[in-house]
Amino acid sequence: MKQQVFMKWAQQKHLSIPHLLLEHYTKLNINEHELMVLLHIQSLLDAGDAFPTPQTLSERMTLSLDACAEIIGTLVRKRLLSIENKQEEDTGVMYEHCSLEPLWASLIHHLEQESETKVENIKAEKEG
Amino acid sequence: MKQQVFMKWAQQKHLSIPHLLLEHYTKLNINEHELMVLLHIQSLLDAGDAFPTPQTLSERMTLSLDACAEIIGTLVRKRLLSIENKQEEDTGVMYEHCSLEPLWASLIHHLEQESETKVENIKAEKEG
Amino acid sequence: MKQQVFMKWAQQKHLSIPHLLLEHYTKLNINEHELMVLLHIQSLLDAGDAFPTPQTLSERMTLSLDACAEIIGTLVRKRLLSIENKQEEDTGVMYEHCSLEPLWASLIHHLEQESETKVENIKAEKEG
Amino acid sequence: MKQQVFMKWAQQKHLSIPHLLLEHYTKLNINEHELMVLLHIQSLLDAGDAFPTPQTLSERMTLSLDACAEIIGTLVRKRLLSIENKQEEDTGVMYEHCSLEPLWASLIHHLEQESETKVENIKAEKEG
Repeated sequence: MKQQVFMKWAQQKHLSIPHLLLEHYTKLNINEHELMVLLHIQSLLDAGDAFPTPQTLSERMTLSLDACAEIIGTLVRKRLLSIENKQEEDTGVMYEHCSLEPLWASLIHHLEQESETKVENIKAEKEG
Repeated sequence: MKQQVFMKWAQQKHLSIPHLLLEHYTKLNINEHELMVLLHIQSLLDAGDAFPTPQTLSERMTLSLDACAEIIGTLVRKRLLSIENKQEEDTGVMYEHCSLEPLWASLIHHLEQESETKVENIKAEKEG
Repeated sequence: MKQQVFMKWAQQKHLSIPHLLLEHYTKLNINEHELMVLLHIQSLLDAGDAFPTPQTLSERMTLSLDACAEIIGTLVRKRLLSIENKQEEDTGVMYEHCSLEPLWASLIHHLEQESETKVENIKAEKEG
Repeated sequence: MKQQVFMKWAQQKHLSIPHLLLEHYTKLNINEHELMVLLHIQSLLDAGDAFPTPQTLSERMTLSLDACAEIIGTLVRKRLLSIENKQEEDTGVMYEHCSLEPLWASLIHHLEQESETKVENIKAEKEG
């Protein structure tokens, strides 16, 4: 193996996926194509791309541009992805900004409900 | 948000995905369902599960047990996943062990080829 | 570079450090030796070692066994590390368990205070 | 805990540290202060800062500006960090660029030597 290729490997960034997302996404009504779109978006946001387009996504995926656009639409409707209009402070130029905030809010909401259900089940058991 | 749920969040492990995998999996002839199976396997291996079964995978995915078994078969045929028989040193008990070594070998092979092509193109350009 | 060594590299786990910890540890009154002990403990907990000893830590660090023991004591006193007695469910055997929960609680407390201060400063500026 | 602070937490980046680095840095003659400087540099490079200065480092660490400058010098002398002059393609402007390539090269060199020693030991044992 060439030194040069290894250096590219050792110096690459990594995308950190929370294990709680991997374990619970199906309960948030997310399928694997949708999750992969979310992971690509996270990866592009980390790299400084504030608004990944269906074009960019389809170049990295086996899905067509139309399929990517449709999944983005679905994710916005399911409130897992938000698209906001922002304004650059210096220049006043408007731009679109993509955020996974709704995804994390949904996941936390799910974990809180799950934790409450457990507490209630333990209570019910004790009270018999 | 409850402190207890946040603690679960802050103390969870993360799966580290190499960016080079996210950028190049389609060139290794891997689709999104296959990649998600590979990521779940990596996550289960990290957690100490040496041989994730189709059953375990289908419980975490939207895919059926049969679909998961089929994808595992495809990944082994495509030489992206290997399943080895190993023997415990102490007890001599045989067990199956799953490894992503072939995936990393394929990815590195692809990166080496890509790097050679670039070098040749630059040479060709210079030589005109 | 040898294929075998690269495989070890590609298959290793990674420790995911929150950027907020790297940016704010000095404000939590943590110095670099203490942070390195915390990172080693996190790495050992991730690997399934429930109670890293000063011995284990000093074998991975340039610090002596005594220095490691002293830093663990300091971290417990500063309420950044907790050591709990737990009991195995099956066997009833008691064991010590180490947790970074207090670290995350302190970091979040700091971030909340910082966020409140910002809100108050903005208010004060507006009210002039 | 406030939703807003949690969002900051959930959306933060993570620094991925290879476990092999945590396990072997002392064998590369790196101490904890030097490792923390390397981790901060990696974190700043990931964030797009091509040349972290002693000033930037000392603001994030408990070390003084002079101590940070000295550690950077030591790391360059030990061939764990390189500082290169680069030129922007578009504008021709010269700039300094910091790279951890020598660190990864040293670590891999160490792992290769370690792996050779093991092979030789096994041979020696068999030949008795």
